[in-house]
Amino acid sequence: VDLFIPTEHPHRRYNPLTEQWVLVSPHRAKRPWQGQQEKPAKQHNIVYDPDCYLCPNNVRITGEKNPNYHKPFVFSNDFSALMENTPSPPQSCDPLFKMSQARGESRVICFSPDHSKTLPLLSIEEIIDIIHVWQAQLAELSQKYLWVQIFENKGAAMGCSNPHPHGQIWANSFLPNEVAKADQSQRNYFQKHGSVLLLDYVQRELELKERVVVETQHWLAVVPYWAAWPFETLLLPKFHVKCMMQLTEPQVADFALILKKLTTKYDNLFNTSFPYSMGFHFAPFNGEDNLHWQLHGHFYPPLLRSATVRKFMVGYEMLGETQRDLTAEQAAARLRDLSDIHYHL
Amino acid sequence: VDLFIPTEHPHRRYNPLTEQWVLVSPHRAKRPWQGQQEKPAKQHNIVYDPDCYLCPNNVRITGEKNPNYHKPFVFSNDFSALMENTPSPPQSCDPLFKMSQARGESRVICFSPDHSKTLPLLSIEEIIDIIHVWQAQLAELSQKYLWVQIFENKGAAMGCSNPHPHGQIWANSFLPNEVAKADQSQRNYFQKHGSVLLLDYVQRELELKERVVVETQHWLAVVPYWAAWPFETLLLPKFHVKCMMQLTEPQVADFALILKKLTTKYDNLFNTSFPYSMGFHFAPFNGEDNLHWQLHGHFYPPLLRSATVRKFMVGYEMLGETQRDLTAEQAAARLRDLSDIHYHL
Ligand SMILES: O=P(O)(O)O[C@H]1O[C@H](CO)[C@@H](O)[C@H](O)[C@H]1O
Ligand SMILES: O=P(O)(O)O[C@H]1O[C@H](CO)[C@@H](O)[C@H](O)[C@H]1O
Repeated sequence: VDLFIPTEHPHRRYNPLTEQWVLVSPHRAKRPWQGQQEKPAKQHNIVYDPDCYLCPNNVRITGEKNPNYHKPFVFSNDFSALMENTPSPPQSCDPLFKMSQARGESRVICFSPDHSKTLPLLSIEEIIDIIHVWQAQLAELSQKYLWVQIFENKGAAMGCSNPHPHGQIWANSFLPNEVAKADQSQRNYFQKHGSVLLLDYVQRELELKERVVVETQHWLAVVPYWAAWPFETLLLPKFHVKCMMQLTEPQVADFALILKKLTTKYDNLFNTSFPYSMGFHFAPFNGEDNLHWQLHGHFYPPLLRSATVRKFMVGYEMLGETQRDLTAEQAAARLRDLSDIHYHL
Repeated sequence: VDLFIPTEHPHRRYNPLTEQWVLVSPHRAKRPWQGQQEKPAKQHNIVYDPDCYLCPNNVRITGEKNPNYHKPFVFSNDFSALMENTPSPPQSCDPLFKMSQARGESRVICFSPDHSKTLPLLSIEEIIDIIHVWQAQLAELSQKYLWVQIFENKGAAMGCSNPHPHGQIWANSFLPNEVAKADQSQRNYFQKHGSVLLLDYVQRELELKERVVVETQHWLAVVPYWAAWPFETLLLPKFHVKCMMQLTEPQVADFALILKKLTTKYDNLFNTSFPYSMGFHFAPFNGEDNLHWQLHGHFYPPLLRSATVRKFMVGYEMLGETQRDLTAEQAAARLRDLSDIHYHL
């Protein structure tokens, strides 16, 4: 019988947060690629773009004019996917035709007035400002909504339609699928083991070290054992904290530091402004104690081999199971070994 | 209180096959798009390409030479994601680091020797040949494997790296996530209602008509009530059949007809060779009676507004919940009204 070698032999790994499997086919990274090439996003130095609807003082498509902002600027998405007041669909008990109400709000947060400054190029102080805005938004929106999804789509490859660095904040009257899954899986683990899933996990990763990408005083970024996207990372506090609102100032400052370091490494991987979708999960605003919950961040970047070759989650992945072409440990080693000084500086 | 209007008011719909919700934001289709443009795939007339590694008589990257084939041609994927003989990973009972064995095979099926003939451009007889090959592959691989995923990635936007029309066949020693979900949901429904979920559903859609795209004697294609992708369709037999192998010859011929009609409508929607990932779900080869199972096909096409503007399933979708910009009924009406004579003919 052959010896099992994780970097050579296909295998499946289990994601305890989604309770789903991922197929790992590490030998497959060798195949040549003749498919679609992405447009690489080079870092630029354009501080102000007169045609950008997110730059200060510019007029948006709705005719509204942006203020001359100097700090992160939040406004209501002009083409919001959700509305504050939406009538409820009629009740139906048909199990095949189930509809339910969805109320909410969508907001845009411009990270800085500077059109060229993506997260890794901002100062720690500027990133702290962003985190403070996220906290304030949560404090406000948690009064009215069950859930608030904070996220950033970065790069054209991730559906971002404006290069001015910005994120989004979608408040929901309901618990979206992915959050409901993370709630359930953490609850299951807590009930079974009497401890917090992601606190146990962060402890193990600190011991094992092989999937660590960046570590700061209070935070850890790893390529999770069950990563789906080639260079996916999971951002974890080393302490128990249920929601972003509860972070202390030193924890916020250190959060800014790890965000800067992690996104710098991403850009340095292929010398490109690295595309990704990222966002945060934390205890929902349901009035429960949510002891099973731990705040965490997900980074889902699509690039696989270079600034122009991405991983496609298509046929087999959509119909069968998520599949990846390198191990989490290989991806973590690549990221860990990169400088945390940005290549553009 | 306002009246609820499904084409104007955001709402959620429930997918009984995945037991998950989808956020529908129909008013959002109006927003302008300044993001990534896809390269439109125009239909061409190149019957043979000397540089294509799938055309007859050409040499593949491994040095192997394709036969001078005239019917669908199947070979083992030169960069297979799975291997027939893979050692088992060591057993571990750690709930956070779970690994399991994955054996399998990946094969490629060239639909025809003609480099230009995508599914809608093949004759019914040629499509019947493809279905017969799928059936024969299932007959063979079901002897050794628990699951066989038949699928096609079409177009560069869906990760396809060779334009020669082809599909793939991945055999698995395990039940992949998506199939396990469909198995569980159909079983739950059968236990609760004593009837087959997708047979009840096809019946309702035949009565309601508003989501029908194409109907033939034995088959129905609808935009499912819970569609995620803008023009997603579900291909359903009107009769109970658990697996593709069990189709009778008249059912196969009619299956070929609906595949041709549906893919023709897709191409006619934006006058482009329409990208998609498609594939089939049916009862796994687990030796059980699987009475709850119904064979069905999923088409997941990414295009939203034109040959160059796609839907991105990114930030909110990855972290929160799948979201769509038009209702299933709107998408179905668009597709239904199109000719089933291909625009290129
Ligand atoms: O096997 P192919 O066509 O080279 O590759 C394509 O389909 C596979 C199965 O869906 C995916 O894993 C790949 O990411 C995609 O590029
Ligand atoms: O809101 P945006 O940035 O215009 O749009 C982008 O992010 C949204 C939220 O993830 C997605 O629904 C869109 O498909 C994507 O293009």
